[in-house]
Amino acid sequence: MKFEAKHEGYQQKVKESFNRQGFMEYIGGKLIKVTPGYCEIEIPYGKNLTQQHGYFHAGIVSTIADNAAGYAGFSLMEEQASVLTVEFKLNLLAPAKGDTLIARGTVLKSGRTLTVCKTEVYGLEDTVETLCAVAQTTLIQLSNTLDHPK
Amino acid sequence: MKFEAKHEGYQQKVKESFNRQGFMEYIGGKLIKVTPGYCEIEIPYGKNLTQQHGYFHAGIVSTIADNAAGYAGFSLMEEQASVLTVEFKLNLLAPAKGDTLIARGTVLKSGRTLTVCKTEVYGLEDTVETLCAVAQTTLIQLSNTLDHPK
Amino acid sequence: MKFEAKHEGYQQKVKESFNRQGFMEYIGGKLIKVTPGYCEIEIPYGKNLTQQHGYFHAGIVSTIADNAAGYAGFSLMEEQASVLTVEFKLNLLAPAKGDTLIARGTVLKSGRTLTVCKTEVYGLEDTVETLCAVAQTTLIQLSNTLDHPK
Amino acid sequence: MKFEAKHEGYQQKVKESFNRQGFMEYIGGKLIKVTPGYCEIEIPYGKNLTQQHGYFHAGIVSTIADNAAGYAGFSLMEEQASVLTVEFKLNLLAPAKGDTLIARGTVLKSGRTLTVCKTEVYGLEDTVETLCAVAQTTLIQLSNTLDHPK
Repeated sequence: MKFEAKHEGYQQKVKESFNRQGFMEYIGGKLIKVTPGYCEIEIPYGKNLTQQHGYFHAGIVSTIADNAAGYAGFSLMEEQASVLTVEFKLNLLAPAKGDTLIARGTVLKSGRTLTVCKTEVYGLEDTVETLCAVAQTTLIQLSNTLDHPK
Repeated sequence: MKFEAKHEGYQQKVKESFNRQGFMEYIGGKLIKVTPGYCEIEIPYGKNLTQQHGYFHAGIVSTIADNAAGYAGFSLMEEQASVLTVEFKLNLLAPAKGDTLIARGTVLKSGRTLTVCKTEVYGLEDTVETLCAVAQTTLIQLSNTLDHPK
Repeated sequence: MKFEAKHEGYQQKVKESFNRQGFMEYIGGKLIKVTPGYCEIEIPYGKNLTQQHGYFHAGIVSTIADNAAGYAGFSLMEEQASVLTVEFKLNLLAPAKGDTLIARGTVLKSGRTLTVCKTEVYGLEDTVETLCAVAQTTLIQLSNTLDHPK
Repeated sequence: MKFEAKHEGYQQKVKESFNRQGFMEYIGGKLIKVTPGYCEIEIPYGKNLTQQHGYFHAGIVSTIADNAAGYAGFSLMEEQASVLTVEFKLNLLAPAKGDTLIARGTVLKSGRTLTVCKTEVYGLEDTVETLCAVAQTTLIQLSNTLDHPK
């Protein structure tokens, strides 16, 4: 599928929204790439991000999976709109381990109101990426809504 | 549904597993209650836990939803077993706002290998709880597996 | 949760929509009960509805789970609206067996655009009901849209 | 991803299992193709398969999505095993219309116990295929279990 952004400043808008997320800063999330209908986010490993076996916590996997999908969808939305996640479903396929966790979100369907995305999450160890989770996400565009606190 | 734990130390085992999660400590998660087939977890609000509108990040909502389900299920598993989340699906019903986020996980089906749970997540503002998310989760019991790093 | 219908003819509207579904007639589905935010549907067992072990096919379980959620939500929508399923997630907890399959859909959140429901599916054998599936469903209200072919 | 079948008769085993499904026969489902980790199923349109707008019912979409995933996974399982769907999640992206509905299931992860698949469902109208649904499915292998009624 090939998508086109609705306004020139779509990358800037995604960046500003990403930077307003206190939580992404707190866990060291980095916005790596945004193109129309696509978004990639990374988080470096840290002991503060682990579950009981020492791997990335499923909550961290969910967080970047949700964010990569959300901003993939947001990249195609109207200039004056905000985005919310309606729901998502995540399958954990392998332990989320490695030096870096990478999420790649892709839009499958971009509708007027709803957007559906799929996301793949990889653990990067040295130079090897292992697929550790896949998600399917539904987003809603809130037209004429601010993407920040009032 | 009414469940019975398989060994006396089930609460202790859940607490120790919870305490090994670096991520839960980092975000201020508190294990409030564990009974057979049930688990409640809370996280107090902080700016470091927010998405772009200033509410709790969906990643935080996912994290406690996943953990409440996981430990509800773990409370019923064998003494020598570990637990992994296979998958979950989360619907976000309302903005996750308030002073505290509360997740309540309940086992629906406890099988030999797989366990299915539902979780409700509430935002507590003053004395009012608002349902902000519901999740449906599948867990797997890993028999004779350590619940901590080797 | 307690809900109120938006127009008096809500039950009639659900029945007419249900009766337009060629597929529900083909598999013997019966609309048992509709109240505001709730819907119950039954399907009697038949060899033509089975999977390879002779139980109700997961497709049948999905069908009534989807329909019970859809009409639970539809019961609360505007008079001039139609309903579509956005997505659903179904966990199969036990073999779907018995003389009758029963789905009970309940609205969790009824929004202007989106509605979220949970559904429980039971197999009825003699007088014993066994929970065999649970679903979580998102619906969309299509305002000013006909609920039948043009 | 590239997968290898565990026994030579994997296609025959899938066909026999498919043919034991009374429901697939009743709705006219055809097993089109099975290769290791992949399965394609088709259903021709009929008025008896419709929802209230005259399109394929979401229950039919679920049915072939579930079956295509199930047999994609079954193609990789042991000779003496049976397969069950643990859960699946389906997003409906567009009206399921056309002369034929086609589901293509692909294995993402084939584990000892659990298998995870993704499925795409297309509506074929004349020579044009439109993606109308995507699913993410978890299967369980039941070792040393008959794939038919006792």
